[in-house]
Amino acid sequence: MTVLEQLTAALGADKVLTDELSLQARRHDYWFLSALNDFQGRPAPNPLCVVRPISVDDVVATVNTCREAGVALITFGLGSGVCGGVIATPESVLLDMSSMDRVREIDPINMLASFEAGHNGAAAEEAVAARGMTIGNFPQSIAMSSVGGWIATRASGQFSSVYGNIEDIVYSIEAVMPDGSVVNFGKAPRASAGPDLRHLLLGSEGTMGVITGVTFSLRRQAEKRLSQAFYAPDMITGLEAQRQIVQQGWAVPVMRLYDEVESVRHAGDHHRDGCAVLMLVHEGPAARVDLEVVEVRRIALEVELEEAPAAITEGWLEHRNDVPSWDELLSQGYVVDTIEISAPWTRIGDVYNDAVAALKAIPHNLIGSAHSSHVYRSGINLYFTFVAQPNEEKEMAATYLASWKAVLDATAANGGGVAHHHGIGRVRKNHLSEDLGDTGVAVLRAVKSALDPAGIMNPGVLLPDA
Amino acid sequence: MTVLEQLTAALGADKVLTDELSLQARRHDYWFLSALNDFQGRPAPNPLCVVRPISVDDVVATVNTCREAGVALITFGLGSGVCGGVIATPESVLLDMSSMDRVREIDPINMLASFEAGHNGAAAEEAVAARGMTIGNFPQSIAMSSVGGWIATRASGQFSSVYGNIEDIVYSIEAVMPDGSVVNFGKAPRASAGPDLRHLLLGSEGTMGVITGVTFSLRRQAEKRLSQAFYAPDMITGLEAQRQIVQQGWAVPVMRLYDEVESVRHAGDHHRDGCAVLMLVHEGPAARVDLEVVEVRRIALEVELEEAPAAITEGWLEHRNDVPSWDELLSQGYVVDTIEISAPWTRIGDVYNDAVAALKAIPHNLIGSAHSSHVYRSGINLYFTFVAQPNEEKEMAATYLASWKAVLDATAANGGGVAHHHGIGRVRKNHLSEDLGDTGVAVLRAVKSALDPAGIMNPGVLLPDA
Repeated sequence: MTVLEQLTAALGADKVLTDELSLQARRHDYWFLSALNDFQGRPAPNPLCVVRPISVDDVVATVNTCREAGVALITFGLGSGVCGGVIATPESVLLDMSSMDRVREIDPINMLASFEAGHNGAAAEEAVAARGMTIGNFPQSIAMSSVGGWIATRASGQFSSVYGNIEDIVYSIEAVMPDGSVVNFGKAPRASAGPDLRHLLLGSEGTMGVITGVTFSLRRQAEKRLSQAFYAPDMITGLEAQRQIVQQGWAVPVMRLYDEVESVRHAGDHHRDGCAVLMLVHEGPAARVDLEVVEVRRIALEVELEEAPAAITEGWLEHRNDVPSWDELLSQGYVVDTIEISAPWTRIGDVYNDAVAALKAIPHNLIGSAHSSHVYRSGINLYFTFVAQPNEEKEMAATYLASWKAVLDATAANGGGVAHHHGIGRVRKNHLSEDLGDTGVAVLRAVKSALDPAGIMNPGVLLPDA
Repeated sequence: MTVLEQLTAALGADKVLTDELSLQARRHDYWFLSALNDFQGRPAPNPLCVVRPISVDDVVATVNTCREAGVALITFGLGSGVCGGVIATPESVLLDMSSMDRVREIDPINMLASFEAGHNGAAAEEAVAARGMTIGNFPQSIAMSSVGGWIATRASGQFSSVYGNIEDIVYSIEAVMPDGSVVNFGKAPRASAGPDLRHLLLGSEGTMGVITGVTFSLRRQAEKRLSQAFYAPDMITGLEAQRQIVQQGWAVPVMRLYDEVESVRHAGDHHRDGCAVLMLVHEGPAARVDLEVVEVRRIALEVELEEAPAAITEGWLEHRNDVPSWDELLSQGYVVDTIEISAPWTRIGDVYNDAVAALKAIPHNLIGSAHSSHVYRSGINLYFTFVAQPNEEKEMAATYLASWKAVLDATAANGGGVAHHHGIGRVRKNHLSEDLGDTGVAVLRAVKSALDPAGIMNPGVLLPDA
């Protein structure tokens, strides 16, 4: 039997799709370069088939079939990845998790919520919000990403500075390993029971197994939310204010610093020439929010920031997930993307200056700008945006890749980490050794080979080219 | 050349000890059963030699020599482990990390501090305290444990409910892998760059590599500290108070609930018959501490706790690291230990009741009691203490192992995690599948085999008997 016949026999014809529309729709994720390739008539190939499991057993059967046949298995959540983690090949089986989307349990006493991995992020948040709780993970992609995808990419949300990144929010992860075994990592509130195996799957991008279920440790919805904003004379001063705030022990859920270029876009009429803008959202128990607003304001003013209208932050809250589609931008000839990195406080200013300068030096660059969005005691992330408009269509891909290289090289040269929360995929895989070192990449490769000796799990992603 | 000759040639005779005193002193860690075996004239054997490296290169040479010779390499920090993670065999090389104890760097801007792995925990804390900062990890063993040991065992400190467990405090980990390569995991404040490889070493207990250096993400020392205490009519009500406090968004650095038996010991004259005692320590920015004390007290009183003298908590703070030595207890014929586990809120009461009942049912048991010491949104730990006094010396080991089994079985039967923060070692290794499942143990075994194919790294520890 062919792989297709075996899958159909094991799962039923209704779960194994081969119609052109189904295949086309899942050829790739939301990576700009895949969209550009489509736009320019070089579309990624269709996969062999799309499998839509509705149970863990379906996933086990699919993994076993692919392993025995030596066929690549590419897991597809809801397709919001932006690093090229999903690109079909003609022989590959595309595992579409979107039909594994049940709520398994919401437990208000232990404040845990369990979902099948394909559950939509916004729907998951709504399900727990209806019980007065929050997952607390608010990526910009929340309406189009899956909870399993959050795990696979090590996602971060906009309120991460208090609620944590996804690794701080996840309680347990259920997965089908490449050998077909079903694991469930994370049994207890906290454990010292050997290495924390959840971390084999967090950030695995489909290379270590198929995530089938996720349980989150929830919070109560905040009693109160207040916003404020400040002008900083420049990015360096704004960064220093953030450092003081977090290192003095104030963990503000949202702290975002926009450089002048981005402030024009976000603050509108409230923009001040030459200034960066710091936006803060405080939430939690009412009495603590009231206190935090005052104390954080005091620190910001001490660092010589000036108060700005809170309407700036409120405007961001309202429009924070509005983004133009790649197609809108491509149709105007733009080459665009965002690139998130992080670095210690002492290096982040150089990362910012060098990366922006390097972006601007790229022919046809129109915009090289950045904002911070996730704050740590040891440092901070930056989220670069670039826009270029090459004269010739054939230069678009090269301009795109050169822009990425400019930012990642500037980051690595200044001691930063090349990936903050979007993952590695294909766009960063040959920069992974900047973070892990060659010895670290060798360790990751050894672990991957041990768990997936046939190499069927999303080949070509995460690990550098050999 | 013999292994001893090779090590001596590679490192120098001064770093390769074979005198009886050096060998005897490092035969085992602080596991009660090892102390009992010594006491009863069944001492663990001496290792082949004790290697005392002073550099990463020394460790690399030792690892390479052991791997090529197929000789077991047992890493020894400062010997405070209590689960049997270190027991020498006659052929083994004992790697004593205590001479790798330099402070590498203290960076007050990024609030990072780097130490060689053998650095004493209390000395590390003092080094950063002198600069106005804190690591924030205060295990009871702080004066006799190493920072590398904290990583290897996934340690927790007494202030963990706000400062986090060791995995939340560590920034990067340097290690020599079994193939002799040197890795440094953790480059950035946060990364989405594949699986977080620090977690291969956190909790590895010497089985995955030799940890040679640790960098911590620090905090500023707290501006203010306040203590309070409450009486709870019973453990269940006290646990409910803790659940309300943490789930309402108040993260108190120290929240410990002692059952009646332990309250007698800790509260002294302030003990109240029939009551459990809840101790809280608040610290941080002064204004927030003042607020937190009031808000947390309000919640505690709502759950019908009654205020108790803060002197109870202050007494604990003063004497929290005083413990009798095993030798003192053994000389009186006592069989004793503590066992830390965790469970979700809905299960922790049953774990408590069942474990205490099971301990008391063991012949010659004198005490079966518990307190909580680490709080999470999803649940809480319990720290059981047992004391037994068998009539016959030859029953001591069996009584000890039966007591452990009683608590771990009661925990697992009620859905708890069998190890909160002391690790697995030998005492829990055949319970590891309770946490990971058989499939999870198989994954851990596959990872271990991939990284250490010769099986030289601390064999016999962590993984269940095959």
